[in-house]
Amino acid sequence: MNFDTQNARAVIDKAISEQRVSLSPEEVALIADAYRIPTPNQHFVASAEEAAKLVAEDNTPKVVKVVSDEILHKTDVGGVVTDVIGTEAMQNAFQQVVDSARTQNSEAEIKGALIQDQVSDGVEVIIGATSDPVFGKLVAFGLGGIMVEVLKDITFRLAPTTRTQASEMLDEISDSKLLEGVRGKPAVGKEGLIDLICSVSQLVADCPEISEIDLNPVIATSTESVAVDVRIILDFEEQVQRPRPSKDEILAAMTRIMRPSAVAVVGASAEDGKIGNSVMRNLIDGGYQGHLYPVHPRAEEILGKKCYPSVLDIPTDVDIAVFCIPARFVASVIAECGQKGIAGAVLIPSGFAEIGEHELQQEVVDAARQHNVRLLGPNIYGFYYTHHDLCATFCTPYTERGSVALSSQSGGVGMAIIGFSRSANMGVSAIVGLGNKADIDEDDLLTFFEDDPNTQVIAMHVEDLKDGRAFAEVASRVSKKKPVVVLKAGRTHQGARAASSHTGALAGDDQVYDAVLRQSGVIRVNSLNDMLEFARGLAVLPTPKGENVLILTGAGGSGVLLSDACVDNDLTLMTMPDDLDTAFREFIPPFGAAGNPVDITGGEPPSTYSATIDLALNEERIHSLVVGYWHTIITPPMVFAELLAESVAAAREKGIDKPVVCSLVGDVEVENACEFLNEHRILAYPYTAEKPVAVLGAKYKWARQAV
Amino acid sequence: MNFDTQNARAVIDKAISEQRVSLSPEEVALIADAYRIPTPNQHFVASAEEAAKLVAEDNTPKVVKVVSDEILHKTDVGGVVTDVIGTEAMQNAFQQVVDSARTQNSEAEIKGALIQDQVSDGVEVIIGATSDPVFGKLVAFGLGGIMVEVLKDITFRLAPTTRTQASEMLDEISDSKLLEGVRGKPAVGKEGLIDLICSVSQLVADCPEISEIDLNPVIATSTESVAVDVRIILDFEEQVQRPRPSKDEILAAMTRIMRPSAVAVVGASAEDGKIGNSVMRNLIDGGYQGHLYPVHPRAEEILGKKCYPSVLDIPTDVDIAVFCIPARFVASVIAECGQKGIAGAVLIPSGFAEIGEHELQQEVVDAARQHNVRLLGPNIYGFYYTHHDLCATFCTPYTERGSVALSSQSGGVGMAIIGFSRSANMGVSAIVGLGNKADIDEDDLLTFFEDDPNTQVIAMHVEDLKDGRAFAEVASRVSKKKPVVVLKAGRTHQGARAASSHTGALAGDDQVYDAVLRQSGVIRVNSLNDMLEFARGLAVLPTPKGENVLILTGAGGSGVLLSDACVDNDLTLMTMPDDLDTAFREFIPPFGAAGNPVDITGGEPPSTYSATIDLALNEERIHSLVVGYWHTIITPPMVFAELLAESVAAAREKGIDKPVVCSLVGDVEVENACEFLNEHRILAYPYTAEKPVAVLGAKYKWARQAV
Repeated sequence: MNFDTQNARAVIDKAISEQRVSLSPEEVALIADAYRIPTPNQHFVASAEEAAKLVAEDNTPKVVKVVSDEILHKTDVGGVVTDVIGTEAMQNAFQQVVDSARTQNSEAEIKGALIQDQVSDGVEVIIGATSDPVFGKLVAFGLGGIMVEVLKDITFRLAPTTRTQASEMLDEISDSKLLEGVRGKPAVGKEGLIDLICSVSQLVADCPEISEIDLNPVIATSTESVAVDVRIILDFEEQVQRPRPSKDEILAAMTRIMRPSAVAVVGASAEDGKIGNSVMRNLIDGGYQGHLYPVHPRAEEILGKKCYPSVLDIPTDVDIAVFCIPARFVASVIAECGQKGIAGAVLIPSGFAEIGEHELQQEVVDAARQHNVRLLGPNIYGFYYTHHDLCATFCTPYTERGSVALSSQSGGVGMAIIGFSRSANMGVSAIVGLGNKADIDEDDLLTFFEDDPNTQVIAMHVEDLKDGRAFAEVASRVSKKKPVVVLKAGRTHQGARAASSHTGALAGDDQVYDAVLRQSGVIRVNSLNDMLEFARGLAVLPTPKGENVLILTGAGGSGVLLSDACVDNDLTLMTMPDDLDTAFREFIPPFGAAGNPVDITGGEPPSTYSATIDLALNEERIHSLVVGYWHTIITPPMVFAELLAESVAAAREKGIDKPVVCSLVGDVEVENACEFLNEHRILAYPYTAEKPVAVLGAKYKWARQAV
Repeated sequence: MNFDTQNARAVIDKAISEQRVSLSPEEVALIADAYRIPTPNQHFVASAEEAAKLVAEDNTPKVVKVVSDEILHKTDVGGVVTDVIGTEAMQNAFQQVVDSARTQNSEAEIKGALIQDQVSDGVEVIIGATSDPVFGKLVAFGLGGIMVEVLKDITFRLAPTTRTQASEMLDEISDSKLLEGVRGKPAVGKEGLIDLICSVSQLVADCPEISEIDLNPVIATSTESVAVDVRIILDFEEQVQRPRPSKDEILAAMTRIMRPSAVAVVGASAEDGKIGNSVMRNLIDGGYQGHLYPVHPRAEEILGKKCYPSVLDIPTDVDIAVFCIPARFVASVIAECGQKGIAGAVLIPSGFAEIGEHELQQEVVDAARQHNVRLLGPNIYGFYYTHHDLCATFCTPYTERGSVALSSQSGGVGMAIIGFSRSANMGVSAIVGLGNKADIDEDDLLTFFEDDPNTQVIAMHVEDLKDGRAFAEVASRVSKKKPVVVLKAGRTHQGARAASSHTGALAGDDQVYDAVLRQSGVIRVNSLNDMLEFARGLAVLPTPKGENVLILTGAGGSGVLLSDACVDNDLTLMTMPDDLDTAFREFIPPFGAAGNPVDITGGEPPSTYSATIDLALNEERIHSLVVGYWHTIITPPMVFAELLAESVAAAREKGIDKPVVCSLVGDVEVENACEFLNEHRILAYPYTAEKPVAVLGAKYKWARQAV
C-alpha cells in the first residue's frame, strides 16, 4: 500500500523540533489519515457550550473523551462517556468527563474534550506497535478489553509485516474464535484488520521515532475496522546499530573458520591437563589434515608439531587461531591475528562479560573489528566440524559425521550434545560453542549452514539473541531450506520493562520470542531432550509429500496412545478410503480393525506385519506411517525390526521414501530392535508412544512452512 | 447447609406424575427457593396489558423474557429484552419478545412473559449440573457469555461438592482472573458463588431425576450472586446401578487373588508355545511357592505337576484359577470355580466384548456373580505380584521386587511396563492386566494396594472407567496415602453427546476426566513414558518437607534450563537468605553465582561439589535439591556420582532424607554415573534437564494434596 509518509514525517519532525514525546489529537489524526487508519469523525471542543453547539442538529450517539496530556488512560479516570445524544446530554457529559478527570488528577491541565461519532457494536481488538530491545519494531494484535488487559491474549510480529503475516496473527491468538462471529453476530471482516496491522507496522518502520503506538480499542465489524482511540509516543534517542557484515563477507569468513586450511593454537601446551594441551591433542586425535601450528613463546615443539613464538612468525597463511591463553592477553594477540590475515579467533578463555568484565570483552571486540577478525566466544568449549576432521575444543574429540549442525550458548549443553550424539549414533556436521557471543552469533552460523552441503538440519540452544531482527531475517530464509530447531532457555524469566502503552507492557520477553520464532519458521522446543531428539530425527525422516498419516499397530492400546499423540502434534489421521479399508482387511483377522489406526491385533505372525506395512508403503494416498509394535512370541522384536527394515528398503529402492516412525512396546529386547531400526534409518523408540510422533510432528511443522 | 428438600421433591414428583420433563417458571422458582438459589424478583404475565399494569408504579429497569416450553435458548431468538422502564416500554417489550419468538418458531405455544427485576452489572458466570454416563452427577462452573459458550472455559466436580472443592473450581478456570475485579470493578464475592455451586450440586444429588440444570447467567457482584435464568430438565429413567461389593469384601477377595496359597491353571498344557504352557512355566520359573494345580481333561502331569480333570477334583482349597481355554468354555468353568470356593478367575482368553461378543462376556459375568467369583479380564496378559513370587501370565517372567504397582488396560502397555521396569531396574510390587474389565477394575486394585505394605506408588493406564464415581471415591482416599499416577489414553476423542443444556454440551469427555482426576488427587500424565518415569521416580524420592527447592549446578546453562523446568512444574525456587548466600559463597569462586541457582562454575574440583552439596543437604530451610552436573576433566562423571552418593548417604544416616534429583550433561560416561546414582536411590538422568525436575514436580503435586 502507498502511505503518505511525508505527512506523517512532517508531524513527527515538528514534535521533535519542539522536544515533545506526545502528540495532540489533531496531530494523531493527521498521522492516522496518512496511514489510512480509519478513525471516527471527531471534533475537539474546549467548553460544554461548544460541545452542545456541535450536536445541535445531530441526534446520533456520540462519545465524549476528556483531552489532557497528563491523562493517558482516560477510561480509568471516568474521562469517557458514551451514548451521548442531544444537547442537554452533551453538556452534562462534557462536565462529567472534566470533573472526573480533575478529581483523579487535580494537577492535570485539561484542554477540553473530543466529541466522536459513536461506532456501532462490534468486536473490540487492540492493534499496536512497540520497540523491543532485541527485536526492534514489533506490531501487536490482540482482543481488546479484558481479553488483552487481563488475559494477555496478544501476539507479535516484526514490523513491517506482510499481509500473510498479519493474517496469521488473527488466527494465532488463543481466542481467535471470537472473530468468527459469536452470539448471532456476523464474523469480523478480516481484511480491514489486516489492513490496519499492515498500516501500523509500516508506520513504525517508516518513522522509527514512534516508540509505541496503541489503537485501542479498534471496533471491528463485518464491514469495517475503526480505531476509536489512537495513542502515539515518540522517542528521539538514536538507537545504536549493531555492525553487520554483508552475507558474502559472513560466508567468506565463516567458511575459512569452519573449514580452515591452517589452524594456530595460541597458548598450546605440552603439559597434560592444560587446555592448550587438550586442544592440540583433540586436533591431532580428531584427524585434522590441514596445517597445525602451536604458538608458544618459548617451546620448540609441542606434540610433534613445530612451535612459533607468535602467529606472525607462522610461514603460511592461517585461517583460525584457537585461543588458550588468559583473558587479559587476548586483545593484543587479536591485533596480531589481524595483521596475519587470520579470519577467525576461537576464544576459549573465560573471564569476560560472564563474570562482569565487560570492558575487557569490549577491548577484544574493538581489536577484532579494527583488524577484521571474527570472534567465536569468548567463554566457549570451542567447536567441531566433522566433515573437515576438525575438533577445535578442549572437550573430548567427536568425529562421527552426520548432517546435523548444533550450537549452544552454554558449555554444559555443548557437552550434552556430544554425549547424546555419541550415545544415539547421531552423527553431526558441526557442534559450535557460542558462549558470550561477543561477535559471531546464530545468524552467522545459520548463514554458513544454509549453504553447507554437509548440513541438513540445524539445532540451536539459545539463551538470548544479541540481534533478534537479524536472526529472524536469516532464520526465515534458512528454515525454508533446512529445519532449524531452537531451544530458547530462560523462557520463564519475564524481564520487567518500562512501557506506557498497553502494547509495550504486554510484550513479555517470552511471548515476543515465541511469536518471532514462529514467524521465522523455526521449530521451537522447550526441552533439551526434545532439541536433541528432534535434531536426530529430522535428519533421518524424509520430507512427507502430504498430510495423511496412517497408524498401523499390533496393539490396540498403542493405537489409542499414538492417536492421542498425533492429535497433540497437529498431525492429520488419514480418513481411510473404502477401497483401502478393504485392502487392509484382507490381511488382518476379522476382529481386527481397519480404519485408522489399522489394528492388526496382537497374535499375528510376521507375514501380517509385512503385508500391511508393504501395503501402506506402496499406497500413494498414505504420506507417513506410524507403526506401533507389540512384543509377542509369534513376532519377536528382532523379527519385526528385520521385516520392517526389509520393507522400507524395498520401497526406497522403488523410489518411495516416506516418513516411517515406530513405537516399540515390549520386554527389553525391543531396545535392540530399536537400535537395529535406527541403524537402518527408521526412527524407532522403546517404551514411548509420544516421542516418535512428536518427531514426525516436528518434520510436518517444518515441511508446512517450507512449502 | 440445610435445604428444603421436601419442597423440591414435591415439585419433581408432580412433574413425574404428569410425565413432564420440563418445569414451569413457578416450579423452577419453588425449587430455587428450596435450595436458596437467589433469583431476581419476577412475575409471570400473560398479556401486554398485564405487563404494563405490573410496572404502573415501578420505574426500576426490568427484563422481559418470553415464556414457552418449546423455546430453550430465549436470547438467541430475540426472546429477551433488557432495560425496560415504564409502562409504554413494557408493552412494547412484551410484544417484541412474543413476535420475535413466533417469527423464529411459528409452532411454539407462547404462554406469556416473565418480568424480572434487572440485576445490576457484575460478572456473568454459569453454574450448572449434568449427568455423565461415567461419573454420574457433575456440577459445573464457568464464566458466562462468550467465555463459556465460545471459549469453553468451564470446570467440573462430582456432585455434591464440599465448599473447598467449590472454591477450587473458582480458581481452576483458565480465566479466573476475571473474578478478581477488572477495569476498576471490585472483585466478585466468592462466598456467594461457592454457596451457589454447593446448592446446585446438592440439589442434583438429592433429586437424581434432575438430569440437567443451568443457572445461566448468574450475575456475580461483590455482594451477591443472582441466578438470572434457571433451567431444569428432568429424566425419569431408572439408572442401572453397577453392583459394588463392600470394601471388606473387595479386600478379602483381592488379597486371596494377589497372594494366593493355591493356583489352578485351567487349560494347562505341556505343549511348548501354547498359552497354557507359558503360564505354567512362568509360575514355576517365577518361583511361586504355593500349590500349583494344572487342570486338563486328560493329562496326568504337566511340567512335573500332577494334573486334575476339573477344579472340583483338586484336593485343597484354591484361591485363583488362571484360564487358558477358549472363550466359549469359560462360563461353565466359572460355575465350577464358584462351587470350589475359588476367589478369582484370571481370564487370559480374548474373544469377548473386545471383538463384539458382548453376550458371551455377559454370560461369564452372570456366572461369576451367581457363584461369587471375581473376574480379572478377560482379554489380558495376566498379572504379577512379585512379593509373592507370582507370575500368572503368558508373557516373560518378571520377579524384581519393588514398591510400585502398575496396571494397564492394554496388553501392549503391559509389555512396555515389563520392558521398562527391567531396563530401568525399577522393581515392582505388581503388574496387572485389566483388559475388558468385565468385573475387577481400578477401584478394586486401588482398594487392595491401599493396604498393601509392599506397594508405595500406584500407576495406572486407563482407557475408560467403568464406574468413574467409584474410582474417584477410592482414588481420593488412596491418593492421600500413596501417589496414584494415571495415564488416561484416548484423551483426544471427544465423544459426541446429546445434551440440551449448556452445561451438558460442554461436558466433553476429557475435560470431565481431567477435572475429576484432579479432584481425586491423582497425578495425571499424558504420556506412557511419563507414567513409567514418574512411577519409578516417585518410589525413590522421599516426601519433601516444604516448598523450597534449590538448584546447584556446575553449568550456568543447565541452571537456566533447570529453572525453566522448575517454573514449568510449579516448583518454588527458594529465595536465598543472606546468611545462606554467604555460606555458599565461601565455597565457590568469586565469579560464581550464589542466589538460586547456586552456580559453582565449571572448573571446580570435587571438593567444591561436596562442600556445597553437604551444605544444601544439611540446611533445614532447603527442602529439595536439584543438582545440575557438567562433565569436566577436573570432576569426571563417576567422581561426581560417588561424591554425591556419599554425601546423600551421610545425610540419610543423620536422618536427613530430602528429595535429590540430578541432571547430568556430558559425554557418554554420564550414563554410567546416572546408573550408579540410581542404584544408590538418587534420581539421575543424562542429557535432559526437564525429566528430573518433572518427577520432582510430580512428587510435590502429590505431597501438596496428601497433606
